[in-house]
Amino acid sequence: LSLNMRSSSRFMKNAWKLGVDDPRKFIHCIKVGLALTLVSIFYYTRPLYQGVGGTAMWAIMTIVVIFEFTVGGTIYKGLNRVMATFIAGMIAVGIHWLASKSSETSEHIIIGVSAFLLSSVATFVRFIPIVKARFDYGILIFILTFNLVAVSGYRVDRLLELAQQRLTTVFIGISICLLVCILVRPVWAGEELHLLTIKNMRKLADSIEESVAEYFRDGEKGDGNETSMQNSRGYKCVLNSKATEESLANLARWEPMHGRFSYLHPWSQYLRVGTAMRYCAYCIETLNVCINSENENQQKAPEHLKKHLSNACLRLGLESSNVLKELASSIESMKRSSSIEVLIGQMNDAVEEVQNILSTPSLEGAESKEAIPTIPLMEAMTVITVASLLNEITLRID
Amino acid sequence: LSLNMRSSSRFMKNAWKLGVDDPRKFIHCIKVGLALTLVSIFYYTRPLYQGVGGTAMWAIMTIVVIFEFTVGGTIYKGLNRVMATFIAGMIAVGIHWLASKSSETSEHIIIGVSAFLLSSVATFVRFIPIVKARFDYGILIFILTFNLVAVSGYRVDRLLELAQQRLTTVFIGISICLLVCILVRPVWAGEELHLLTIKNMRKLADSIEESVAEYFRDGEKGDGNETSMQNSRGYKCVLNSKATEESLANLARWEPMHGRFSYLHPWSQYLRVGTAMRYCAYCIETLNVCINSENENQQKAPEHLKKHLSNACLRLGLESSNVLKELASSIESMKRSSSIEVLIGQMNDAVEEVQNILSTPSLEGAESKEAIPTIPLMEAMTVITVASLLNEITLRID
Repeated sequence: LSLNMRSSSRFMKNAWKLGVDDPRKFIHCIKVGLALTLVSIFYYTRPLYQGVGGTAMWAIMTIVVIFEFTVGGTIYKGLNRVMATFIAGMIAVGIHWLASKSSETSEHIIIGVSAFLLSSVATFVRFIPIVKARFDYGILIFILTFNLVAVSGYRVDRLLELAQQRLTTVFIGISICLLVCILVRPVWAGEELHLLTIKNMRKLADSIEESVAEYFRDGEKGDGNETSMQNSRGYKCVLNSKATEESLANLARWEPMHGRFSYLHPWSQYLRVGTAMRYCAYCIETLNVCINSENENQQKAPEHLKKHLSNACLRLGLESSNVLKELASSIESMKRSSSIEVLIGQMNDAVEEVQNILSTPSLEGAESKEAIPTIPLMEAMTVITVASLLNEITLRID
Repeated sequence: LSLNMRSSSRFMKNAWKLGVDDPRKFIHCIKVGLALTLVSIFYYTRPLYQGVGGTAMWAIMTIVVIFEFTVGGTIYKGLNRVMATFIAGMIAVGIHWLASKSSETSEHIIIGVSAFLLSSVATFVRFIPIVKARFDYGILIFILTFNLVAVSGYRVDRLLELAQQRLTTVFIGISICLLVCILVRPVWAGEELHLLTIKNMRKLADSIEESVAEYFRDGEKGDGNETSMQNSRGYKCVLNSKATEESLANLARWEPMHGRFSYLHPWSQYLRVGTAMRYCAYCIETLNVCINSENENQQKAPEHLKKHLSNACLRLGLESSNVLKELASSIESMKRSSSIEVLIGQMNDAVEEVQNILSTPSLEGAESKEAIPTIPLMEAMTVITVASLLNEITLRID
């Protein structure tokens, strides 16, 4: 029992920490509560209060289902819901009208067949990747609304009345959602993506620098303090950020102008920068694996060789890291950096220095070590990455 | 206009191809249509037919929202929906009963405050990762149901009647969903995960073999035929399969026993195998980058050296690939392979051979090339990967 108590108290503590680390999560919860309270008050105080049972239900449902953490998510779901409800309602009423012209048996058949066909086709459309990314929720609502209206069995004039009522309610729900979402401490998907990219780039820079430094550090492993260990593991975040980046970029497209971001900000560029960073992170991963496997197998590289290469490699690590940090600052300020060309020049110098050292004859007899040749590797990668990054930055700023 | 026509016809063709490549997608669409038709027929032919407007609405809504591509997904959403509807309904009725004991003003306040608090807390709980993975949908439905009931303003006895009616309807909707989903050509998330893992492992094996072979192939690049190019790019799938694997493993947990998989099949082991494969893929990625950068920079490794290493490296690539293929077959048949020990022995021999060649003095003057030392890299990686894979396979089979 006490074990159970302890594990559940740890669970609570972790959950609480989640909110303390990012207080916007607490704020989001209060915003959801606020929106729901507002819609209840709105329907309670209406002059024509006919009980909240029927109509207000759709407003509450809309708010619960639509309210997302980011503004982009809320707009995406809201627009999809309104459009889908409207279109599906129109089509369903049209089919009802057509069917009502014929005999009762064929009426049922027309409605049944069209419901089956439209549902199946719409379900298939959801599998298409580009549609899934932008309109998945809308198509779900389309199927739902169409079936509800088609199967309802009401007459056309009653249907039109219902449709109008429901559209109004959904519209009210969405308006309240958007007002609360945008006015009370908004969380913009675009800004999140921007900050995530900058943060990841800095982590990557720290990782490059630290991984190289760790390898060449004198004395025992584990000698480095806590912070440097943490820094050198920062690239792991970059490895796993693909899904987050994609969903943020998707949602950011729906957002209006905000802060320094215009409506048509090139969000897809962030995805390309993210991909370039991931490739860089793959290299650091490989480098770390080599360093670790060398430690385990006791196949140490000869000390004199390590010394010999140490300075050049450390410099290369530092220069690559500086270039990445400068790029991060330049993305942060959204200005082309003036010193970036100089830093890239210095990095290329460092690359050449390492290559020169590697091709001097003092390397004889050093063939069995594995880790050192990986550093030129990393350098080659970094150059490629930086080149592609630069390209994109130019694109974005122009 | 004709440009527009052409692009939309290409879009249609791509969409159609999506279904032809995986006919289960077509079948899924028909299944959704079938379930919706069944529920309509059920409500039309009920002895106590009172118009499909009110009650049947919830059954249709349940089917549209719950029906997923995999059985696991449908069960996950179905169970979550039933449980959440039940629990939220009970709590809401309880609070209503409490509130009805007091004066009218304090009744409104009690209901309003409890709706605000419960919605906020439930929204926060959705942020907790482990809850999000298993009960996200349930909590959404909880918030929805609770608010609908709390704000409805009905008296308690009417509420109980409504709650019972709604639970029955949701239950009918879910039953029809599950019947269609499981009986008509089911797609099991667990089996999908199983097949994906096997497919990825085979692709990885082909990639290792082909990448090494491509590097050592005589003559021009691009000399290899189409198939071998495709094989050597297979590891890219492995790099990007993380999100898919995680969601499949999550859904597979909800599935009952099916085929060769028991209810408590260790699905999380597949995730660990997937992670190990991804690390292996990172290495292949790095190796390929090196080979390509060597081609671009005209810093070819000396030919004599390449020849010298060629045989040993090719053998290593082949042996690693064989081990992976054997592991894939062993996962496929879910039996421990008898020949795996022998194959691993052979691979280790190949590793030693490469290391021996690298430490012979004939390497003098070969310091400037970059690509060859990466092969031991890859080998070290493969050994580590294979060791961890083996561990897990043992775990699974025992």
